[in-house]
Amino acid sequence: MTVGATDFQAWMREELAAVEAALSAWVPADAPAGLGQAMRYGVLDGGKRLRPLLVLAAASAVRGEREAALRAAVAVELIHAYSLVHDDMPCMDNDVLRRGKPTVHVKYGEAQAMLAGDAMQALAFEVLTPEAGVAPALQARLCGLLSRAAGHSGMAGGQAVDLASTGLPLDEAALRDMHHRKTGALLRASVVMGGACATIEPRARQALNDYGEALGLAFQVVDDILDVTQDSSVLGKTAGKDQSANKPTYVSVLGLDAAREHARELHRSALAALARSGLTHTAQLEQLAAMVVHRKN
Amino acid sequence: MTVGATDFQAWMREELAAVEAALSAWVPADAPAGLGQAMRYGVLDGGKRLRPLLVLAAASAVRGEREAALRAAVAVELIHAYSLVHDDMPCMDNDVLRRGKPTVHVKYGEAQAMLAGDAMQALAFEVLTPEAGVAPALQARLCGLLSRAAGHSGMAGGQAVDLASTGLPLDEAALRDMHHRKTGALLRASVVMGGACATIEPRARQALNDYGEALGLAFQVVDDILDVTQDSSVLGKTAGKDQSANKPTYVSVLGLDAAREHARELHRSALAALARSGLTHTAQLEQLAAMVVHRKN
Repeated sequence: MTVGATDFQAWMREELAAVEAALSAWVPADAPAGLGQAMRYGVLDGGKRLRPLLVLAAASAVRGEREAALRAAVAVELIHAYSLVHDDMPCMDNDVLRRGKPTVHVKYGEAQAMLAGDAMQALAFEVLTPEAGVAPALQARLCGLLSRAAGHSGMAGGQAVDLASTGLPLDEAALRDMHHRKTGALLRASVVMGGACATIEPRARQALNDYGEALGLAFQVVDDILDVTQDSSVLGKTAGKDQSANKPTYVSVLGLDAAREHARELHRSALAALARSGLTHTAQLEQLAAMVVHRKN
Repeated sequence: MTVGATDFQAWMREELAAVEAALSAWVPADAPAGLGQAMRYGVLDGGKRLRPLLVLAAASAVRGEREAALRAAVAVELIHAYSLVHDDMPCMDNDVLRRGKPTVHVKYGEAQAMLAGDAMQALAFEVLTPEAGVAPALQARLCGLLSRAAGHSGMAGGQAVDLASTGLPLDEAALRDMHHRKTGALLRASVVMGGACATIEPRARQALNDYGEALGLAFQVVDDILDVTQDSSVLGKTAGKDQSANKPTYVSVLGLDAAREHARELHRSALAALARSGLTHTAQLEQLAAMVVHRKN
């Protein structure tokens, strides 16, 4: 099955609405002492929701169970959102604005921001373990995939490398290792978790993993390119920030032209993985890869 | 079966050694950029390991699966330890010493401490979801119990209430609600997770829950009593700290004598719950309750 750009836009609109509704339903407004407001502020009404879309596109490719896929989509976004809340804090990147709004710690204070992030991580695993509606074995599988993507060997580990590498000369392999963990692990997990929502052949599972890996890296390469080629107004965040923070990027390591070629190469790898997956409903995953590589912000 | 104090001490020594060995094996030394060292520093070589002991005692009472119980014991301790790392940070309690050693953020910096705590929470769920050795349905059940105890309706929520209540007059119900979440939820979950390691009757499950609830509250009442009656040297932390921080405690709300009577009453409730559980191997749980109520630090 192939879908055109119009079908893809319609699919995306529908799925984004489903994700927003689920996030709004499951991130509690009534958590005590303002914690719920801080959590909702950190996760609702913003963000491209790329990770949930990857979960849902992969689940659609394998004809996965809807309830499980939607929960997985919300869970990965909660992990992503908590990491931004903690990343923005003064002891990390010290950002005061995100998507044009005050960051969580500016609005609610540092202590509440830290707790909100902590509670968002726990909530991701609550969402994955409902009383009913998702087979227990699938719940366990999704919890296993998400925790490994979020923890020391994934996102948190990548952030530690990032912290330690500011101002240091990194070669491409070291840079790839950092991004592989920091942003790549959760993007790849999004695809793999979506794929886990049905029983599929090993080659399809491997192909989804490879697609997720290529796409995760492509995302970061494009991020680095946009950081030096786009205005802050288009990016919705401060352009040139990595450069001024003396952080190693694909552009600083490879140069702009080679970075662009690398993104195209990763895009081709992602599509090649889908082609060898044996799956027939990969149109949304194809379109998401194009979106990641050709985005303007 | 009843065991004497000597048997209990031997059981405890053995189980503590098992928990330390498992923590040391599962908290990675090789996580990148110093993250592993910070995680290990935050969790190894310290702590009474009350929560793991509760898991293992409850698992022993129900003849639960050993591998699952040990993983649950490590997971609850990881959640407890991460909460201390984050709690000690400048934006929260701003503590520079814990158990006579510099706190994690003093030793490794605030950013690394925040990441270490974040990675410890993720690791708890990794430990609960091994490739093999624990039935997937039990993995899912344990992840569900732990995430709910750790998150907005449990520990993180209680910390938010604690933050918001400093300097405010709380009545006993509000104080109980705060502690019910802040420390009670994880202590209760420890008992319930141990009990989940076997299939047991509903009345046994309910009784373990009630035991865990009474014990969790007793723990906090005794904590508040020790804060005003013990020297810092015995406590291993600053005595009188709650009082000087103007935090509501059971002693400030009830008075010292009534707080002591309340602890005795909760101890009796915990034992009564065990008596109606229908379980026969509850000696360790009985002894742990006595230990919590009669401890000196």
